[in-house]
Amino acid sequence: MRLAYRLWLDAGGRAFGEGPAALLDLVRSEGSLSRAAAHMGMSYNKAWRTLHAAEERLGFPLLERHIGGEHGGGSQLSPEGEELLRRYVALRVDVARDLEKLYKKHFSDWPPTGRE
Amino acid sequence: MRLAYRLWLDAGGRAFGEGPAALLDLVRSEGSLSRAAAHMGMSYNKAWRTLHAAEERLGFPLLERHIGGEHGGGSQLSPEGEELLRRYVALRVDVARDLEKLYKKHFSDWPPTGRE
Repeated sequence: MRLAYRLWLDAGGRAFGEGPAALLDLVRSEGSLSRAAAHMGMSYNKAWRTLHAAEERLGFPLLERHIGGEHGGGSQLSPEGEELLRRYVALRVDVARDLEKLYKKHFSDWPPTGRE
Repeated sequence: MRLAYRLWLDAGGRAFGEGPAALLDLVRSEGSLSRAAAHMGMSYNKAWRTLHAAEERLGFPLLERHIGGEHGGGSQLSPEGEELLRRYVALRVDVARDLEKLYKKHFSDWPPTGRE
């Protein structure tokens, strides 16, 4: 048995979680949202809608698009997108460590042997 | 903005989380699964399936049914159901406190004023 969880930032609804974080991370390395989407096996359209919904909830842009049309030109993270991703990733590392500790505190001697 | 999350115990799949915990808590106070289900606006059938699926994954019974037929007679928590609920609730209290602390650590000064 193990403790599982899902985290997200809420701002009048689900604003930012694993999906947008993974996309931003890939935009940073790939330099474009269409390549980031392809890496996740996600359509460009779905990736765009995912980030657009997050931007709407957060109230600031996550990406800066370069000239060259929707699929060309490329994208990079906005300064606020960079900052949000940095904080979210740092939070996630701390959360993983703390939740592992708390799970052990409450469940290390349970369930009884043979019933794992 | 706030940090939101969902916790569950995984044992080869989602085994025990908020739904089963709420049902067990109500079975404890109501003395029957049908009354517990009614309190949650859930059908008896759905409540039974929820706990049955949890029992399958966990490998032990959560309820002890009393004589009197499926909808009569009443139920109480098995000793292992009591113990699991006690540990899960204690874990949840600790998790809520720690995650609040971690969210403040990483996000207390963000997003910038006026963009909340």
